[in-house]
Amino acid sequence: MLSMTPRTTLNRSKDRGRTDREDLYAVLDAGLVCHLGVVVDGSPRVVPTGYGRIDDTLYLHGSTGATSLRGTGEICVTVTHLDGIVLARSVFHHSLNYRSAMIYGRPRLVEEDGERLAGLRAITEQLAPGQWSAARPPSRKELAATAVLALSLAEASVKVRKGPPLDDEEDYALPVWAGVLPLHSSWGTPQTDPAMTVDLEIPEHIASRTITFR
Amino acid sequence: MLSMTPRTTLNRSKDRGRTDREDLYAVLDAGLVCHLGVVVDGSPRVVPTGYGRIDDTLYLHGSTGATSLRGTGEICVTVTHLDGIVLARSVFHHSLNYRSAMIYGRPRLVEEDGERLAGLRAITEQLAPGQWSAARPPSRKELAATAVLALSLAEASVKVRKGPPLDDEEDYALPVWAGVLPLHSSWGTPQTDPAMTVDLEIPEHIASRTITFR
Repeated sequence: MLSMTPRTTLNRSKDRGRTDREDLYAVLDAGLVCHLGVVVDGSPRVVPTGYGRIDDTLYLHGSTGATSLRGTGEICVTVTHLDGIVLARSVFHHSLNYRSAMIYGRPRLVEEDGERLAGLRAITEQLAPGQWSAARPPSRKELAATAVLALSLAEASVKVRKGPPLDDEEDYALPVWAGVLPLHSSWGTPQTDPAMTVDLEIPEHIASRTITFR
Repeated sequence: MLSMTPRTTLNRSKDRGRTDREDLYAVLDAGLVCHLGVVVDGSPRVVPTGYGRIDDTLYLHGSTGATSLRGTGEICVTVTHLDGIVLARSVFHHSLNYRSAMIYGRPRLVEEDGERLAGLRAITEQLAPGQWSAARPPSRKELAATAVLALSLAEASVKVRKGPPLDDEEDYALPVWAGVLPLHSSWGTPQTDPAMTVDLEIPEHIASRTITFR
């Protein structure tokens, strides 16, 4: 179960809330990037960035020089999957089908080498499964330039909307088409780097990658 | 030209920055949802939501009861298009191809009826072109329940990454496949609401909608 705190308890559209921890994992594991919210000089800043999950910890990384990773203030991480446009009989009831997760917390700067590597591996494999072992591992210098942050999944909320529009009772008789326009994602054909100096087949884990995130 | 302020001037990856106002419009106009960042009780909150643009103003809307739209503090609006995964020869140089826009500012609560309607129209047409005139317009009561916010595009930044990976010179000889795995979006087949009481064809503006946002 997800714990309920004032900010993870939905005030509106309560029927869209999910309280099972598995729902949280499903939304996170199906994503590619999150939107990371931080407060800088009192103002919000939202940056798209990669992430990875190990059990109940979310890992983020960035350059040690990145403004958005400075400090140890609270952050908010949001992952959103847009599944379709909900076309209602009234403008007011137009909506989106989506799955989203929001996590709040104060991240911990990871100092221990083993956990730093595990976190970076999780982030890499989330974006590019199979690449952690296929590509050259990080050097000492590269590791030193990378900040790894760990965020507990203790305070999180999940929202899901699916299905047809919900119109006002009296609008169902209107001569307006209503329904859902689904949105799909797919991988295109891998584009080999023109700078390749070695003649290699496209590896199976890239060529046969399927969309698991929609 | 986009004006440069301390927070819209890129500190890192400067080559990814775009300073043309047309680049900002292109990223915004191609999107469906933004991630809205607000500060609530000193902590950041990031929520996915629709938006619309008219000239140099971005419009947002929400229930008058929504926590994230309360107050007139600064906000940050981020729109991100993920175009592909950049697979490098080293783990460290893995990256993403993307287009993103960030807008900072203090939104104005729109009070005038004409501008409120124009803003809502822009938001609706961004998500569902053609629907503002196809569906029942908002009633007085619906309008009263909806807060419309206007955000100037005065302080904004645009970042774009495209093309193959950039590896360290000595890594180009490694026997590791490198390239880009493109990510595409597409509309699925429209799903007619099972609760339709009138027999109607799927309107042309929905059936023939093409992806303009990737």
